[in-house]
Amino acid sequence: IVESQLSADAIELGNYDHFMQKEIFEQPGALANTLEMVANASSLSSGLFGADAEAIFARTRQILILACGTSWHAGSVAKYWLESIAGIPTSVEIASEYRYRESVALPGTLVLTISQSGETADTIAALQYAQGLGLRDTLTICNVPESALIRQSKLRFLTRAGPEIGVASTKAFTTQLASLFVLTLVLAKQRNRLAPAREKELIEQLRHLPAALNRVLECEPAVRHWARRFAVKQHALFLGRGVHFPIAQEGALKLKEITYIHAEAYAAGELKHGPLALVDREMPVVVVAPNDALIEKLKSNLQEVRARGGELFVFADRDTHIEPADGLNVINLIDHAGPLSPILHVVPLQLLAYHAALARGTDVDKPRNLAKSVTVE
Amino acid sequence: IVESQLSADAIELGNYDHFMQKEIFEQPGALANTLEMVANASSLSSGLFGADAEAIFARTRQILILACGTSWHAGSVAKYWLESIAGIPTSVEIASEYRYRESVALPGTLVLTISQSGETADTIAALQYAQGLGLRDTLTICNVPESALIRQSKLRFLTRAGPEIGVASTKAFTTQLASLFVLTLVLAKQRNRLAPAREKELIEQLRHLPAALNRVLECEPAVRHWARRFAVKQHALFLGRGVHFPIAQEGALKLKEITYIHAEAYAAGELKHGPLALVDREMPVVVVAPNDALIEKLKSNLQEVRARGGELFVFADRDTHIEPADGLNVINLIDHAGPLSPILHVVPLQLLAYHAALARGTDVDKPRNLAKSVTVE
Repeated sequence: IVESQLSADAIELGNYDHFMQKEIFEQPGALANTLEMVANASSLSSGLFGADAEAIFARTRQILILACGTSWHAGSVAKYWLESIAGIPTSVEIASEYRYRESVALPGTLVLTISQSGETADTIAALQYAQGLGLRDTLTICNVPESALIRQSKLRFLTRAGPEIGVASTKAFTTQLASLFVLTLVLAKQRNRLAPAREKELIEQLRHLPAALNRVLECEPAVRHWARRFAVKQHALFLGRGVHFPIAQEGALKLKEITYIHAEAYAAGELKHGPLALVDREMPVVVVAPNDALIEKLKSNLQEVRARGGELFVFADRDTHIEPADGLNVINLIDHAGPLSPILHVVPLQLLAYHAALARGTDVDKPRNLAKSVTVE
Repeated sequence: IVESQLSADAIELGNYDHFMQKEIFEQPGALANTLEMVANASSLSSGLFGADAEAIFARTRQILILACGTSWHAGSVAKYWLESIAGIPTSVEIASEYRYRESVALPGTLVLTISQSGETADTIAALQYAQGLGLRDTLTICNVPESALIRQSKLRFLTRAGPEIGVASTKAFTTQLASLFVLTLVLAKQRNRLAPAREKELIEQLRHLPAALNRVLECEPAVRHWARRFAVKQHALFLGRGVHFPIAQEGALKLKEITYIHAEAYAAGELKHGPLALVDREMPVVVVAPNDALIEKLKSNLQEVRARGGELFVFADRDTHIEPADGLNVINLIDHAGPLSPILHVVPLQLLAYHAALARGTDVDKPRNLAKSVTVE
């Protein structure tokens, strides 16, 4: 007899109406658990990823990330981090595409799979396909200790998010991001690209994440107000740039999954190459607007949308100084988390989807047509 | 005084109602012009890309494709070809994203830009950014001889599509694809991955393209019939797998640009990870169904959509034996073009967008909010 390690708490609703709501609000705790070993250390070690990690990371020349759905969005954020901070060429592939195409297997590739359940059929098959090409260095970031991906990978990092019941992934995503950031720092350090002072500063930012997330969650009443206006819409565009483009994609996916509103994300620079044609009064445009190097470019994208009559819903870091105006709604995020900003910015998008679903009366935790883990092809 | 080399024909409508229609039907001729030097040769030479091509291709270890919009879709198709046929690792980036992120510049990278006009601001800036990182081997595939991209690149291949007036790109796209296929073959040959018999066979298939396209264009009456049913819809999903996934993306972009119907493409394997929630009776689903290794997987995706009440519009190679049924509409493509199949399959999607726009009464050649060449950021 194997006793389940899940506590009763973890699978009961408690004071919440839905698991998705509960899981959104569990994110500060889930992040604290996931980062426990990291935040208590004064410096990072490759041992966090397994006993063989040091040797494997030393021979890693590039990273190939394989994942599906929300986990693919986490991988897409990680590509920006891994290339800019650790200086490692990274490609991100949809697992169901990778497993069926002829690709080039380069020596020195670390194959990184990401999955909440560790049982996603396409991701397992993609991993096995990569192994069949001779790629033996494998790492998985996963939320379930005994899962297939864990068993089939040399290295692993567990997101300690606790059981995720809602079909729309929330705390699994943010803990995946945090884990991928830790990986980025470990690899950067090993390549002498992370000065001790900068390492200390970034560990400090990781340690601050749960508190920062709690402050983001305070925007719920304002988001609920917006959500009621979204609930009557049939469409939405989500825009982001750089490391926040995958966050816009994740926000659109959440809305799509549980409200059945047709939401689509674009890298804001691509607006003029097509999607701007869709913009009219009936098309709300959600914008992820962190205070980063791209903010002025993003402001110019906002003007393009406004000029075509589109209504803007902007989640902006407070110091971007984007002011509300006619057709331009703004919710401010108070903290700016530097490179960790994507982890904060996804949370209001989760809340937007959740409250829009409530307003529409859809089944939040069990949206039509979808299963929690896609364990068949 | 510089006399324009454009003939009067090229910029007049003639017997057509719109430039887009004219340009769709010009594709067999545009491909024949673009491929003239290739099709008349019995074997391929790197000299097609410029005097320095042989030396540059010999030191090419990987390819970085930079483009926007429709040209980015052409690049996405090319990634599949370049990796599977030429065995060269290839990454494809949205130019507006690449130019603003910190990436890793690897020695031996050929930077390949794609643009109809050769004046796309983001693509020029991305090229310059790559050059600034020390990447000096550059190739452009472009439709305008004196353009900025041509001037700033060491190697070039001209698509001889003639002037493209309609904002929604058609013949520029298919001639880009043909050019990228020629590039793939030249690189494969140089790497001893193309046996003479296979080279001969593929040149034969290239030579046959204009005739094959003419046969695809014969499906126009059937597509027009479908388009009338599309014209009343607000949404559409486009599905494809493998090298036809970017074709599904291009089909969705065409529909979006000129009909303002919110069309979105998915790699069919990602359906279960979210977009399936959108599928109901109001959501038509367009499927690109070539007869390739993935056809059985695709058929199972079709069943998932049907089971949720979605109406299917399938463009299928005749020998896939997908039979029409209740809620499952099929238009057959007679020729199967092997690896060139994406060039055939995009054409009915162009026709679908064109006729749906006619039925909706939108301005086909000058859709709202869009410009032909995006020469500002």
